[in-house]
Amino acid sequence: MQGSTKPRPPAAPPSLKRLVTACFIVRCLPKSELDLIREIRRRAAPVARGSKAARRGIGDDCAVLRTGTNEEVLVTTDFSLGGVHFRREWHPPDSVGHRCLARGLSDIAAMGGDPLASFLSLALPAKLPQSWVDKFFDGLLALTRKYGIELAGGDISQSPNSILADIIVIGSAPRGQAVLRSGAKPGDQIYVTGALGGSAAALQRLFEQPKKRLRATEYPEHFYPEPRVTAGRWLRKHKIASSMIDVSDGLSTDLMHICEESKVGALIDSELLPIHRWASTQRARLPFALDGGQDYELLFTARTATHVPSRIEGVRVTRIGEILKTRRGKPRTELLIYGEKIPLIPHGWEHFRAKR
Amino acid sequence: MQGSTKPRPPAAPPSLKRLVTACFIVRCLPKSELDLIREIRRRAAPVARGSKAARRGIGDDCAVLRTGTNEEVLVTTDFSLGGVHFRREWHPPDSVGHRCLARGLSDIAAMGGDPLASFLSLALPAKLPQSWVDKFFDGLLALTRKYGIELAGGDISQSPNSILADIIVIGSAPRGQAVLRSGAKPGDQIYVTGALGGSAAALQRLFEQPKKRLRATEYPEHFYPEPRVTAGRWLRKHKIASSMIDVSDGLSTDLMHICEESKVGALIDSELLPIHRWASTQRARLPFALDGGQDYELLFTARTATHVPSRIEGVRVTRIGEILKTRRGKPRTELLIYGEKIPLIPHGWEHFRAKR
Repeated sequence: MQGSTKPRPPAAPPSLKRLVTACFIVRCLPKSELDLIREIRRRAAPVARGSKAARRGIGDDCAVLRTGTNEEVLVTTDFSLGGVHFRREWHPPDSVGHRCLARGLSDIAAMGGDPLASFLSLALPAKLPQSWVDKFFDGLLALTRKYGIELAGGDISQSPNSILADIIVIGSAPRGQAVLRSGAKPGDQIYVTGALGGSAAALQRLFEQPKKRLRATEYPEHFYPEPRVTAGRWLRKHKIASSMIDVSDGLSTDLMHICEESKVGALIDSELLPIHRWASTQRARLPFALDGGQDYELLFTARTATHVPSRIEGVRVTRIGEILKTRRGKPRTELLIYGEKIPLIPHGWEHFRAKR
Repeated sequence: MQGSTKPRPPAAPPSLKRLVTACFIVRCLPKSELDLIREIRRRAAPVARGSKAARRGIGDDCAVLRTGTNEEVLVTTDFSLGGVHFRREWHPPDSVGHRCLARGLSDIAAMGGDPLASFLSLALPAKLPQSWVDKFFDGLLALTRKYGIELAGGDISQSPNSILADIIVIGSAPRGQAVLRSGAKPGDQIYVTGALGGSAAALQRLFEQPKKRLRATEYPEHFYPEPRVTAGRWLRKHKIASSMIDVSDGLSTDLMHICEESKVGALIDSELLPIHRWASTQRARLPFALDGGQDYELLFTARTATHVPSRIEGVRVTRIGEILKTRRGKPRTELLIYGEKIPLIPHGWEHFRAKR
């Protein structure tokens, strides 16, 4: 229990040692947990000093954040799991860190919010090289600096097998002005930022040539996706978007979320879809664009009378369809292709989906 | 891509199917992700309707929370990992759910905060029985109801192996009044709520008789620990505590956190420690109380002139030591035992700790 040569309290029986070493598998990462926390705190500090929101960050039981008096708090959490959301053999660690935070920022963008602070719960296998951890934080902290937010806390644990990261992003929006999924009405036009299918097309190449590493810098939309925080905030400020979501699970699935929450239908025109150039050269271009996911673009609706610019803060905006009424009270999504309407089944990523 | 007998867009090449099935290992939990979210949403709803804080919960990109105009936001995140923080063969699923949320609530308690809402990121292996998931939520949601907070969102994912839960609790406190770890001053008296070492003693019994299940209801302090939310809030409201932390990693480690953040030393009197009755019958009673962890009691300091009652909201409060100056500018913790002072080395749980 205590060190030094002074008198000691009754020694712990062997079983207690077993309790400590067996229950909490103690092996060695290059750095101990406390050292790792100190290191993260040191690296997160320059951002912290410039942060408006965090009065108290890493180093207490909770982080303490301040928001404006007329603001609401936005909260989002997203897992990034090794073998599920990324693969160590394909994704360099700074890309994993970047994508981890980008997922959370994209959710804040989809509400038109201002990101305030981020939190990271990180479970690492004991045998992971410290250099991997360092580069992971390189990618994540670069993105915190870009958006002027703080890594204000989190949890660190040892994991039995794979790398597990859970990112929490806290944002704010003026009271009652966060853009929800539930505001779409029949007749609204449907828009999307940027291009779709790029991330899935890059993933496809990784699958086809698993031994050949893609150069991450050549496929930035997959390895370093840009959350549309600025465009989302612009859409909220100018009261353009009646409903909004980010395209993380695939257009077909995310559009269905809007339809379910708004209790409407939707029709997408396949001719209007802005398909990413990587996907447009492949046979599966339409499935990539409709179901690919991980594009982190914004999908939003606007009233017909609303003028929606073709670029917002440098990001292209494309009209891709229209909101319809429900059919027999049920939300539905349809696709206009070769002049015919067919059902657009949500085929984006869904965990635990039973075989259909 | 689309169902029905209508004309179809160009079929996805086999490699795309591989992309979907291989990258995102699709197996079947009894319920799909969307069904699981619907079920959680339905079960969380009764709490949601009574909640003051959440204007928008599960079903959007972010949850939207409201706080009072003169309040600060508290944020805490904690992992509960199978094989690390609990074992399926020892801990019934409702205990895992309870402990998961209790960890987060205990952090809010340690700031003297009011819990507002909780978020759960949950990754489950595909083969886990749905009944386990249901009972996990039984335990977690019972605790949300007890404290009148909402399960307002989160993330669900499939995990390659074990059960991973990350709980996020959002709370609030009046501006500038959250009790930090950094407020202790030399001369302050050190107090702890309840008793120490009970949880570790129960864990020890589990290790000694791994085949014999402990009856969870007979060891509530281990299986269903009560976060000291009410006592923490009382201490903040009455401006009693100069610094506070919850005993989650073990007294020796958590006291060192206070010393580091407050830049002070501390002396604990071994005779004064309120040792749990389960631990007091064992040889390792002092290590259990000093290093055991998972007791979720509050450790706090108060100025000498402050009157600290012996019970707060029904919970016993015990004085166990005194805050000292640092030695050569370094924080330090000491133990008074058999009339002698010896160094109290932080031996509570620390992940990735290298062998000493």
